[in-house]
Amino acid sequence: MANKAINIGLIGFGTIGSGVVETFNLNLPLIEDKVKRKVNLKRIVDLDIETDRGVEVNPEILSTDINDILDDPEIDIVIELIGGYQPALSFILKAMSQGKHVVTANKALLAKHWDEIMESSQINQVRISFEASVGGGIPLLRPLNESMAANKIEDIYGIINGTANYILTKMADDQRDFDEVLKEAQEKGYAEQDPTFDIEGHDTAQKLIILTIIGFGVYVKQEDFHVEGITHITLDDIEFARNELGCCIKLLAISTISNGELEVRVHPTLVDEKHLLSSVNDAFNGVYIIGDVVGPVMMYGQGAGMMPTASAVVGDCIDLIEEMGKPLTYGPEKTRVTRIKDMNEVISKYYLRLMVTDKPGVLHEISGILSDLDISLESVSQKKQVTGNDVPIFMVTHQALEENIQKAVQRIEKLESVKGEVIFIRIL
Amino acid sequence: MANKAINIGLIGFGTIGSGVVETFNLNLPLIEDKVKRKVNLKRIVDLDIETDRGVEVNPEILSTDINDILDDPEIDIVIELIGGYQPALSFILKAMSQGKHVVTANKALLAKHWDEIMESSQINQVRISFEASVGGGIPLLRPLNESMAANKIEDIYGIINGTANYILTKMADDQRDFDEVLKEAQEKGYAEQDPTFDIEGHDTAQKLIILTIIGFGVYVKQEDFHVEGITHITLDDIEFARNELGCCIKLLAISTISNGELEVRVHPTLVDEKHLLSSVNDAFNGVYIIGDVVGPVMMYGQGAGMMPTASAVVGDCIDLIEEMGKPLTYGPEKTRVTRIKDMNEVISKYYLRLMVTDKPGVLHEISGILSDLDISLESVSQKKQVTGNDVPIFMVTHQALEENIQKAVQRIEKLESVKGEVIFIRIL
Repeated sequence: MANKAINIGLIGFGTIGSGVVETFNLNLPLIEDKVKRKVNLKRIVDLDIETDRGVEVNPEILSTDINDILDDPEIDIVIELIGGYQPALSFILKAMSQGKHVVTANKALLAKHWDEIMESSQINQVRISFEASVGGGIPLLRPLNESMAANKIEDIYGIINGTANYILTKMADDQRDFDEVLKEAQEKGYAEQDPTFDIEGHDTAQKLIILTIIGFGVYVKQEDFHVEGITHITLDDIEFARNELGCCIKLLAISTISNGELEVRVHPTLVDEKHLLSSVNDAFNGVYIIGDVVGPVMMYGQGAGMMPTASAVVGDCIDLIEEMGKPLTYGPEKTRVTRIKDMNEVISKYYLRLMVTDKPGVLHEISGILSDLDISLESVSQKKQVTGNDVPIFMVTHQALEENIQKAVQRIEKLESVKGEVIFIRIL
Repeated sequence: MANKAINIGLIGFGTIGSGVVETFNLNLPLIEDKVKRKVNLKRIVDLDIETDRGVEVNPEILSTDINDILDDPEIDIVIELIGGYQPALSFILKAMSQGKHVVTANKALLAKHWDEIMESSQINQVRISFEASVGGGIPLLRPLNESMAANKIEDIYGIINGTANYILTKMADDQRDFDEVLKEAQEKGYAEQDPTFDIEGHDTAQKLIILTIIGFGVYVKQEDFHVEGITHITLDDIEFARNELGCCIKLLAISTISNGELEVRVHPTLVDEKHLLSSVNDAFNGVYIIGDVVGPVMMYGQGAGMMPTASAVVGDCIDLIEEMGKPLTYGPEKTRVTRIKDMNEVISKYYLRLMVTDKPGVLHEISGILSDLDISLESVSQKKQVTGNDVPIFMVTHQALEENIQKAVQRIEKLESVKGEVIFIRIL
């Protein structure tokens, strides 16, 4: 090992940070042999350096002073695992301005400050790696960026939020309602006490921004695309999808291009049970990507958690050490995207569920509205009465324009005999 | 694009070679932008340069003289796609000795001449890349070698032969016999006229040798591990597995380590329908890998075919161009493997099927043999008579030693009331 030792500074000694320490504890010899250098976790900075994380660590490398990493000229690679926007952004920018390479799992930061971070990386001629930011430990961004580099990417369909996928899987498997499963997921630690970020699709959206950059070379802000969560999905929807349509419901991140026009969207989606994505269950993630040369591929694994995420973080460190001189390019150099489509322009098949008063003419009124808006039905199913005089109706449309579906839903909701909201779910 | 243009020489203008040409035709600008250089397919050598391959190609770059590539000092990368051992080996060694980097899809050659090829690569300080040799276009070897480099690999379970998987899938889906499905597969071009290589597991074994090197850092010769194909699998097995055990049957390549002892084997395997590998159907491939840090991951896609394989070949070229200076390491530098286990030492659950004459005491004789050999049964099922007085018996064992199962099978087959072979299939 004639090469110079590599010094690493870790910012953030939380769950993932502890996983990184544990990974070095477990596999440092393997890693050092692979990169043919000594690798030294020189410093860990966190506001709390007292709490026992349950991993073996030399107390002398712990510090509460960020400058012990940022100003240490011996540190080559900075791992940022504090999450959030600030001070993470400042730390990363300062690290890069000091000539340090950066590894991060911070999807929120990348999704919001992509341009600024990449510009700093270019100016300072350092690399930033972030495999852990999407799909946890799954080899995903690098295969997409490198192994599939001979391809024009056509479609990305991702199940990239383990919490939402866990809830939808449990609802289907145990035939239980959303609220009940969410509560259990919170108790088991699969969902946060405030689960909004996961179940409303925001986490999925941030990851989709990163996937879209690498797949299509275009940065789309979260405000600029449709993001819809899973809170309105009921057990009825899941059972109708399964029993009548042979589908399951998954929260999908979708980026798909056609004639240079890109659709970017996050929403629950009916997925045919024959599609491999439908077999991505529990807290697992799976990303299905279609390239023009390779056809469909899928990468699958644990999209979160201490050790899986640490695997990607340390994998990035290894890659950095091996390829420090290699210039950085993420995604195609020139994008084929000429325009981001509005959600209104999306064309899809739809599943609709609504509750109506069971009296003559209701279905006639509804089908009239659909027909007016050029929406034709593939199937209609009216179930037996549940409460009083109200019955649920389930409908599946042929290909229809999202704008027309939205208009139809608004008009149907105004009908006197229609109770509450009309739920609609897109079909893959 | 200040950098020097890269010249590529392609040896072998067959199906995959045509796919490579087509990929450059489709995506050369994308590739050149990515690597920031001109990329020039300078020469194609094949014995037949007359036949129209259906892809656009400049006839001036075609040649029948291998030295137009090997002796051309301007050619930086040689793509070898003629397959087989010779002259492929000589061509690759000569190319490397001339300082050329090599890309190949030649699994047979790598599986047999690994050490010689890698030695030449090291001596000549050139790289050899072979993503296309296992799993066609699926990003597989590089993710395993690089993205998962922070892991000790524990298990590799691969469906890596599309022909065998197509046949097993069709048997299950259409409830048809092996011979009938094989015939159809041959007619559709999914199986060769001589299908031995695919259906007897040899192709899977060659690919497993490569996976085992990268996952575990040890080269195991094909003669040194158990390789069993799918020709003895009947529709009865598939249906019993599905209906009684909730399993499907897949031809698996298995490499798994325990206390430094490695099991390497290829055989049909009962896979639980809840396992994601059971959803890898038709001609698709899927490789399920467990790392000690990341846990399980799976990579999925088309394991063969003109364009998917070309995607991996050209992806390797891009990687080579971007990282020509990077030293080459495949797999862990030091292997953890202390010993390759003999097949006799494998411990597994087993499914057994046999045909017996329906008379008192038969089951008693069989269970006596099993009991003598420490094999306990989880379930036994005797079906109604099929022909004459003969009935099939299906058994599932608890964990048992392969050696004992083999002995039991031999002894059971000698029983007067047992007709023909006892078929046994391992359970994952």
